[in-house]
Amino acid sequence: MNAATPSSHLAPAVLQREVPAVLLAALKARFAERCSTALVVREQHGRDESAFTTVPPPAAVVFAQSTQEVAEVVTLASQYRVPVIPFGIGSSLEGHLLAVQGGISIDVSRMNQVLTINAEDLTVTVQPGVTRKRLNEAVKSTGLFFPIDPGADATLGGMSATRASGTNAVRYGTMRENVLALEVVTASGEVIRTGTRAKKSSAGYDLTRLMVGSEGTLGVITEVTVKLYPLPEAILAAVCSFPSIEAAVRTTIQIIQLGIPIARVELIDANSVRMVNAHSKLTLREEPQLLMEFHGSPASVKEQAEAVQEIAAEFGGNAFEWATTPEERTRLWTARHNAYFAAIQSRPGCRAISTDTCVPISRLADCLLDSVAEAEASGLPYFLVGHVGDGNFHFGYLIDPDNPAERATAEQLNHALVARALRLEGTCSGEHGVGLHKMDFLLTEAGSGAVGMMRTIKQALDPHNIMNPGKIFSL
Amino acid sequence: MNAATPSSHLAPAVLQREVPAVLLAALKARFAERCSTALVVREQHGRDESAFTTVPPPAAVVFAQSTQEVAEVVTLASQYRVPVIPFGIGSSLEGHLLAVQGGISIDVSRMNQVLTINAEDLTVTVQPGVTRKRLNEAVKSTGLFFPIDPGADATLGGMSATRASGTNAVRYGTMRENVLALEVVTASGEVIRTGTRAKKSSAGYDLTRLMVGSEGTLGVITEVTVKLYPLPEAILAAVCSFPSIEAAVRTTIQIIQLGIPIARVELIDANSVRMVNAHSKLTLREEPQLLMEFHGSPASVKEQAEAVQEIAAEFGGNAFEWATTPEERTRLWTARHNAYFAAIQSRPGCRAISTDTCVPISRLADCLLDSVAEAEASGLPYFLVGHVGDGNFHFGYLIDPDNPAERATAEQLNHALVARALRLEGTCSGEHGVGLHKMDFLLTEAGSGAVGMMRTIKQALDPHNIMNPGKIFSL
Repeated sequence: MNAATPSSHLAPAVLQREVPAVLLAALKARFAERCSTALVVREQHGRDESAFTTVPPPAAVVFAQSTQEVAEVVTLASQYRVPVIPFGIGSSLEGHLLAVQGGISIDVSRMNQVLTINAEDLTVTVQPGVTRKRLNEAVKSTGLFFPIDPGADATLGGMSATRASGTNAVRYGTMRENVLALEVVTASGEVIRTGTRAKKSSAGYDLTRLMVGSEGTLGVITEVTVKLYPLPEAILAAVCSFPSIEAAVRTTIQIIQLGIPIARVELIDANSVRMVNAHSKLTLREEPQLLMEFHGSPASVKEQAEAVQEIAAEFGGNAFEWATTPEERTRLWTARHNAYFAAIQSRPGCRAISTDTCVPISRLADCLLDSVAEAEASGLPYFLVGHVGDGNFHFGYLIDPDNPAERATAEQLNHALVARALRLEGTCSGEHGVGLHKMDFLLTEAGSGAVGMMRTIKQALDPHNIMNPGKIFSL
Repeated sequence: MNAATPSSHLAPAVLQREVPAVLLAALKARFAERCSTALVVREQHGRDESAFTTVPPPAAVVFAQSTQEVAEVVTLASQYRVPVIPFGIGSSLEGHLLAVQGGISIDVSRMNQVLTINAEDLTVTVQPGVTRKRLNEAVKSTGLFFPIDPGADATLGGMSATRASGTNAVRYGTMRENVLALEVVTASGEVIRTGTRAKKSSAGYDLTRLMVGSEGTLGVITEVTVKLYPLPEAILAAVCSFPSIEAAVRTTIQIIQLGIPIARVELIDANSVRMVNAHSKLTLREEPQLLMEFHGSPASVKEQAEAVQEIAAEFGGNAFEWATTPEERTRLWTARHNAYFAAIQSRPGCRAISTDTCVPISRLADCLLDSVAEAEASGLPYFLVGHVGDGNFHFGYLIDPDNPAERATAEQLNHALVARALRLEGTCSGEHGVGLHKMDFLLTEAGSGAVGMMRTIKQALDPHNIMNPGKIFSL
């Protein structure tokens, strides 16, 4: 990567491979109206929530209803060396769904059954099109919940494919820790299972974790078994204002270093609060805030909250508000939940270029504060939210997509931020994945040896390069 | 696998590859006295704690002192297509260290430096020859600890390679959850880094987790970065006797299903207690026991212990003993810690054939009780210990290694147990790995498709099949 030449948000190189008419005919014959070539359907499946310049949409979209059907599509595609791109709900922020080499989109959103709830084992098996909210609805009566919550109501298939996390990861981990087993259709159309429902295993290569985060490049996920957790006996939420981002960050660092088992600790900056106030006609304090949540027994929750309040006070935290009922908690979390959309609406027609770095907690202040200073100096409108308990945060630079200078500025900020995070022993992506946007960053982060190993694995498992090609690394 | 023909404990097929004299000469020239061809040294490196019939030892042992030296050995071996077998401390239970295809043992026990303690980030980076006890000594002054504790004082390299766990895994996870990053020498002699010190990442394939549990077949681990945890403010240990194994197991199941964050919950059966009493001249109650430990704040520990005592009482648990000081805790844990050696010594000259199944917690009673009945019926002396909070337990069948009938009986018991665990959606290996012993079991568990995928990855990353060949799957 040449750090002086930010280029990763520009249109990716398009090497459209031909989708032969005979393949389209075969798919139409097999799937009838569930194989669509209508432009509007294809266009909807050829983009995502990222700020990418569009590329031509996929040649067709197949709405699969079973593992067997996914396998049939992949088998046919393999025969004709045509790319396949799994599609859940389209909430990727990194261009994962773009048909950069052409091909067929396999939409699994109709594979939306919760297959088996094993409440006594704290596990559940779902089809890949089940969204996280639907999953939580389905398990509600068991007294259990699934904690992973990326911003969007993403599908379990997509969340697995991108190794997603969210606000609860500081306590409950990410998809890496929470996927127990998968069913996957491989590049040859074979159906395999990785893992079992046992909580731990040393039986062979960890194919589950190889597939989690592989972004559709090694196979199509057709079933997901994840862990569930007992709903905490007590939940206490709190919001606290700070005189500066630094004070909020230093509070967070101390909470984590002391090992307080906080369930959520989210930073929102004053810009975000201002945007939320404008968007929702609220009067929240326009200061950096930490939103926190404590899970446990009543006694343990109280203990955690007291310890945190003491730490926050040392760093000038004030205006603590507490909430125990679900309604009060929802109100407290409003600013965080609405930040993204409030930000987008604060500048009509804008797109947000999101950063996703994650650093060791001791480096968080160094990484974040210098990047805030750079964002301020740039003059671009931006907002900052962060899963700071994990050392992960997102700037959203709000650019006019038709203004190349603004895009270039945002890219420069992102490049500087990533370079800083890597120097501080962090990663370019905490939870969004590499997709199209971070291929150069990944190379810098992991080095050509490790990326070479990834590429070797990809080539071995997908010799015709048909599984979501052109993502993670160039190939 | 033909379940009717237990064969996996028999001597593995030996296809010794030639180690050319020119390679030995080159190693001698480079490493001088740190390249040994003395029979006693080779024999010590050609076996482990498993009950395998020995195969010829490696042709030489190189005591490497740096990553660069490991890379040099692998590069030379690669040139001559000669196998290399990484060796830590020799505590494998599955034949991982046997030179089944000949080759060179790379002993990394002298790479035993704790490289960087990042107390504020709760991480530490070590060389692969550091043992878990040495690591805990090194971090003691920081108020942190490393919880993963397989029975042996294993090396971090070996623990990573086998995805080890132990008694604390029920709360702290296994090596899968606790390794953040690795340095690895690949089959071509290249040095790569997987992962960063960031707590989470979505940056590309999870090479860290691919290497963890790969049993030396994909590379030699030369550096390990793991998570640390704050020493709990309070630790409370307890031992409790039960009228039956079933009562102890049902107590465990309920503890886990209620989400009580117990740090350890270990089962030892009456046989084990009897052997420990004989071995250590103790008078412990010769009944099934649960040994438990609670970590947290004083209030939380008390709360957990009260909840558990109430559950245990419902299942007839009695004779609760509590311990808070380190000395008292050590005394309570004596039976568990000494079980293996007490068992071995209960029958002079015997070897223990260890099982390692792990099942979802709701299936634990079904799996365990039928297997106890079978072990009783067999007439073989045995003991049973288990990390039952994870659904993982070990029978040790004490056989006379020179008596083929006893070996066959133990194998039949193990086969029946594994078949049962797989029916109950479990795994053949919770923590010991596949090695030589469980290759057939893995095939049954994962299926030919998934094992085929593992083999494809292996062939792509190690085209000359020199990295600890003949383990996990036949190749």
